[in-house]
Amino acid sequence: MSKQEPVTLAQDGAEGCCPTLSTAPMSEDRAVGLAKVFKALGDPVRLRLLSMIASREGGEICVCDLTPAFDLSQPTISHHLKLLKQAGLIGSERRGTWVYYRLVPETTDKLASVLARPAASVPATS
Amino acid sequence: MSKQEPVTLAQDGAEGCCPTLSTAPMSEDRAVGLAKVFKALGDPVRLRLLSMIASREGGEICVCDLTPAFDLSQPTISHHLKLLKQAGLIGSERRGTWVYYRLVPETTDKLASVLARPAASVPATS
Repeated sequence: MSKQEPVTLAQDGAEGCCPTLSTAPMSEDRAVGLAKVFKALGDPVRLRLLSMIASREGGEICVCDLTPAFDLSQPTISHHLKLLKQAGLIGSERRGTWVYYRLVPETTDKLASVLARPAASVPATS
Repeated sequence: MSKQEPVTLAQDGAEGCCPTLSTAPMSEDRAVGLAKVFKALGDPVRLRLLSMIASREGGEICVCDLTPAFDLSQPTISHHLKLLKQAGLIGSERRGTWVYYRLVPETTDKLASVLARPAASVPATS
């Protein structure tokens, strides 16, 4: 999490879209990229921030509405937001005085697809 | 990750099964439980171990088949396996000389459901 560039998850190549954990042993490169994103989610404050951003009607939220929800300093909240942004989980836009954050759903989609069971292994409900 | 007890993810209560990130701001308790599991996934070696376990035909793998795949000592591999087990991501069984590991799919299912988009927000494909 020391690099400043946002994480770019490796594109899935000729072997098809979105191999899951159960498809085959994961390559080292893919594991390094995904681990950075999972690590960003491995903190309760960041999970709550991400959930506040993702669940906001209209799809975006002002940093001025995030900070008061936590018993933490503004620089601490900003640090957590920076880590979420570096992980590619959120994007931001400055408009006037404030910065507005929104979810990058492609990143959470990709994580969800890694964790999903292959269709054949999901128990039938009928 | 300092506690020895396996993580038990909070059951979803009367508000229905499996609220996603986008459903509503996440409670602090739920965020603490989920963050422990995401943190366990936030390491490339643990992700590769989990993928080797999850993708093994027959559903389980001997620790003796995991260790040679990494350029790491056996105690280091054991430590990573312990963290995955404490997070509720894998289970283990000793049989004779060796310990065998298998995925706990209910835990990865729960994480996948947290990250999934509500059905209404997934773009239609037709």
